[in-house]
Amino acid sequence: MPLSPEQREEIAAQRAEAYETRRVVAPRLEEILYEALPVLDHGFVRVVDYMGSDSAIVQAARVSYGKGTRTLRSDAGLINYLLRHRHTTPFEMCEIKYHVKLPIFVARQWIRHRTANVNEYSARYSILDNEFYLPAREHLAAQSASNRQGRGNLIIGAEADRVHELLMRDAAQVYADYTEMLNENEEGNVIDEGRDGLARELARMNLSLNFYTQWYWKIDLHNFMHFLSLRADEHAQYEIRAYAEVMLDTLERWVPLTFEAFSKYEMGGVNLSSQSLEVVKRMIDGETVTQEESGLSGREWRELMETLGREA
Amino acid sequence: MPLSPEQREEIAAQRAEAYETRRVVAPRLEEILYEALPVLDHGFVRVVDYMGSDSAIVQAARVSYGKGTRTLRSDAGLINYLLRHRHTTPFEMCEIKYHVKLPIFVARQWIRHRTANVNEYSARYSILDNEFYLPAREHLAAQSASNRQGRGNLIIGAEADRVHELLMRDAAQVYADYTEMLNENEEGNVIDEGRDGLARELARMNLSLNFYTQWYWKIDLHNFMHFLSLRADEHAQYEIRAYAEVMLDTLERWVPLTFEAFSKYEMGGVNLSSQSLEVVKRMIDGETVTQEESGLSGREWRELMETLGREA
Amino acid sequence: MPLSPEQREEIAAQRAEAYETRRVVAPRLEEILYEALPVLDHGFVRVVDYMGSDSAIVQAARVSYGKGTRTLRSDAGLINYLLRHRHTTPFEMCEIKYHVKLPIFVARQWIRHRTANVNEYSARYSILDNEFYLPAREHLAAQSASNRQGRGNLIIGAEADRVHELLMRDAAQVYADYTEMLNENEEGNVIDEGRDGLARELARMNLSLNFYTQWYWKIDLHNFMHFLSLRADEHAQYEIRAYAEVMLDTLERWVPLTFEAFSKYEMGGVNLSSQSLEVVKRMIDGETVTQEESGLSGREWRELMETLGREA
Amino acid sequence: MPLSPEQREEIAAQRAEAYETRRVVAPRLEEILYEALPVLDHGFVRVVDYMGSDSAIVQAARVSYGKGTRTLRSDAGLINYLLRHRHTTPFEMCEIKYHVKLPIFVARQWIRHRTANVNEYSARYSILDNEFYLPAREHLAAQSASNRQGRGNLIIGAEADRVHELLMRDAAQVYADYTEMLNENEEGNVIDEGRDGLARELARMNLSLNFYTQWYWKIDLHNFMHFLSLRADEHAQYEIRAYAEVMLDTLERWVPLTFEAFSKYEMGGVNLSSQSLEVVKRMIDGETVTQEESGLSGREWRELMETLGREA
Repeated sequence: MPLSPEQREEIAAQRAEAYETRRVVAPRLEEILYEALPVLDHGFVRVVDYMGSDSAIVQAARVSYGKGTRTLRSDAGLINYLLRHRHTTPFEMCEIKYHVKLPIFVARQWIRHRTANVNEYSARYSILDNEFYLPAREHLAAQSASNRQGRGNLIIGAEADRVHELLMRDAAQVYADYTEMLNENEEGNVIDEGRDGLARELARMNLSLNFYTQWYWKIDLHNFMHFLSLRADEHAQYEIRAYAEVMLDTLERWVPLTFEAFSKYEMGGVNLSSQSLEVVKRMIDGETVTQEESGLSGREWRELMETLGREA
Repeated sequence: MPLSPEQREEIAAQRAEAYETRRVVAPRLEEILYEALPVLDHGFVRVVDYMGSDSAIVQAARVSYGKGTRTLRSDAGLINYLLRHRHTTPFEMCEIKYHVKLPIFVARQWIRHRTANVNEYSARYSILDNEFYLPAREHLAAQSASNRQGRGNLIIGAEADRVHELLMRDAAQVYADYTEMLNENEEGNVIDEGRDGLARELARMNLSLNFYTQWYWKIDLHNFMHFLSLRADEHAQYEIRAYAEVMLDTLERWVPLTFEAFSKYEMGGVNLSSQSLEVVKRMIDGETVTQEESGLSGREWRELMETLGREA
Repeated sequence: MPLSPEQREEIAAQRAEAYETRRVVAPRLEEILYEALPVLDHGFVRVVDYMGSDSAIVQAARVSYGKGTRTLRSDAGLINYLLRHRHTTPFEMCEIKYHVKLPIFVARQWIRHRTANVNEYSARYSILDNEFYLPAREHLAAQSASNRQGRGNLIIGAEADRVHELLMRDAAQVYADYTEMLNENEEGNVIDEGRDGLARELARMNLSLNFYTQWYWKIDLHNFMHFLSLRADEHAQYEIRAYAEVMLDTLERWVPLTFEAFSKYEMGGVNLSSQSLEVVKRMIDGETVTQEESGLSGREWRELMETLGREA
Repeated sequence: MPLSPEQREEIAAQRAEAYETRRVVAPRLEEILYEALPVLDHGFVRVVDYMGSDSAIVQAARVSYGKGTRTLRSDAGLINYLLRHRHTTPFEMCEIKYHVKLPIFVARQWIRHRTANVNEYSARYSILDNEFYLPAREHLAAQSASNRQGRGNLIIGAEADRVHELLMRDAAQVYADYTEMLNENEEGNVIDEGRDGLARELARMNLSLNFYTQWYWKIDLHNFMHFLSLRADEHAQYEIRAYAEVMLDTLERWVPLTFEAFSKYEMGGVNLSSQSLEVVKRMIDGETVTQEESGLSGREWRELMETLGREA
């Protein structure tokens, strides 16, 4: 994550400031505010602002439920209750804002979550940096044979060398041709005074999807947890999961009680269909249940046995 | 706006706190943070949290447009430019949260703005206070003869007395019967130990739409300005406009540069259709234009002349 | 559900039309299109338009996953798979539009679902009908002793008579005073030529929350299922559940395969936290687990035992 | 726009179907339903479903405003009125669904409009076609000297040849290396049985942003008009404008009255700030106004003069 000297300076300046506020503060998040937390080879995640904390969720819930909430012993108990029973609106009362640097193909997955605000670096206005993602060798996996959306065995040896060679060669070439078409180098200096250079909004189309972009991204806590539950999941593509995992750490610093409830009910929780629940009840009663008479399809049966940690 | 002693104490406690933060701060908004700003006879608006400031908008825009924004002389110039050209996403990077006490019929208009987060006091859980809105005599207007959605002449004298009498009598009666059905008084004490009392979720249906409710309401700055442009407009019903006007003052304290641009381009601005623009051009050229040959309908013509401050 | 003669005529006219279309059609939904399905004492639900069907979901999924989806044996299997694995976007490709007549206090719960489009009858423009909801005796329940948000025992005998008496008396009075203030009767005829009448936007505030309103309401299938899973749930207030249940029937007519998957995975399904899953695994292994060493709170333990159909 | 034989067959089959429906129908849109309307060199736009029509907007408005709307002479008059006065909810009652094939860099601009539903072809599951956008020579423009976001003079002659040469060479190379890394050709056949092939979700990152993707995209009419007003605008990048312009034709077929109102008030309309309106009023009164004493910045002054068709 090679931050430019200007960026380092700006971050240091932001972190050096201290203001007085009457607002609720999340002290452990303040510790890392503005810091660039590295992800992948050139990416980062920075928390640049936030609003609210665990106590803001409790406060919003107490407005909704009035005196009714007094009977719950503690903030932690109330937050657990809210999350377990899908009372999601109090979690919408908190907001967090990130500055993220990420490969374009990751940005394309990320942006599908529409309940967030985004300001992306514009390649119509400005020149993109010469930085692209090159997967580390331990992430060079083959297509999974069993799962059309996943990765299988590691690619090693000469084949891995070849993948790296092709990715590096092509990235170097498309970037060189991007600057030639622009007639500007990475710093924006004209290369050849004798010609115009293609408009930036056109030249950018020659870059490949592993080049890095960056954006400001802001989301409320409820939708953020939904994002994390999908993107920190083991079925998510490794590259976006790498971002989600760093963001999970910032979640824990921001709203520790909510983080704990989220870990129990969302990340570690499971859904059972009505039929799967019937199977579970019978198994608890000591019955031997087979897929054939369970009412489940073969695929559902295998998924259930995996959930229960048993042989299919 | 009769705040209870507990509420006064809570607000005083919130205002007495001072924390250190690295986040951006809006000093003039901090001055009034948590204060209950009175609206109508029993309502209020309180800013209870916020995120960002004018500088956060500028910062987000500079991420989007990169070095391109450096050529604009000032933050104010950039904010003007963004608003004028509908580059709305940087304004979505700021967020504000209010605690509002308002009559139910106002809440019903307000909630139509769906791009906000809401936690409302639940009358399924808790008992509503015995407070209802009674319009001041200067707001007792007759139905407009010319505009189906507006108010006309003031109602005065005996007719005004009668309106007040009916509103007060009915509100007193529906609340008394609400508590009788609940078998609980306003403080939640059982009235008659010998019977059960109707469920709160049912009894509430007997209350009228002028009773007060309250909620936490959170919105981003872009959508907030859209809300204000509709609800602070002279065509909005007086009672919601009263809230919007108090909130305009808090907007000015929060993001003064944005407030100024908003006043120029949104609140004070006008839209002209392609045909109206043609009329304006001809009038500037000194032509005398009549409705008949303007291509405008009678209604559009009257609206245009009103906009231009001329006789129709 | 007393439809006016004009409404009956309009519905009959709509149902008599038959057009030719190249669009996908849901034949069993067409059968009841425009029909007013009664809910509560004066309410109704009418499907007035729809877009897509089970096949549209399959088609959208096949665009996303390309040839990958060919290996799934059937449309039903694919729809089950999508719902089970939270691939929700294909369900957003279908849309349905209802005309609903409902008490205002139900409308206030309903509108919290923000991902829908709404056009409500405006009491600023027009006079509300003299119709209010009066709960049938079998729905007159006391406040629950154990659940702050629910209903307990039925209220019977003289206490039930008294509730009905109060609700009817107050509704009659607030409506009479509404028309007196308006100086217009229900049909919009002036009562007393000698005075003006209060503006409609003001007079309406005297009506109570059990009066009926109506709206057009449009939503996509994914968000509709989310609405139904919350509002057809046994914890929802009876009055909104009555609407959700009628809408479940229309869902079944519209997208029968999706309805079946929804019944299995959403309506009949359960969530288990990571700790509850551990308890279940141990119980299947024949262990005797107690609340004390389960890691669950007393409340969570009772909820889990209820889910599993066992004594707590 | 080289449709595959399978696609041609599928479209022909869809167009050959005719069903009976009680729903509202838009006859001129039915004429082109499912047809692939060409855009750019390999892209297309196909309307694949719709809901509602001009009459549905009128119907929704009449529910909102009740008898009040009867006084407006015609559907066209009512639709004009609604659009002019920003009564936008009735337009949300209509919905349209497209199948679009478009370059990835265009998709990245398009997806910023978050109020739509999207199902995109997944390059995690399936192999992307070997098709990329090559701008026609009349669209090869230089960066604008005056506008950081726009295009200036055409690039011609040898420089244009060179741009085409680079774009074609790089696209050919990144695609060839994509298939080599996949160890699969465009049809999905294994190239070399002796090795695994990189996972699709990784290999795709080598493709450049001018490659084509496709998606289903669904939006309501209000948000669709907002999309079109931004993307059919002369400041939009040519490549996305090319799509918006074809979609404007489908809008005209779908809701002709709304299209006409939209053309007058949105596409052809202008916004004037409060200060610009003052300048216009003074000019109509025959005054000579200069920028210096207008209160407008130099940039605002030039924009206003351009709007009024006058020398700055």
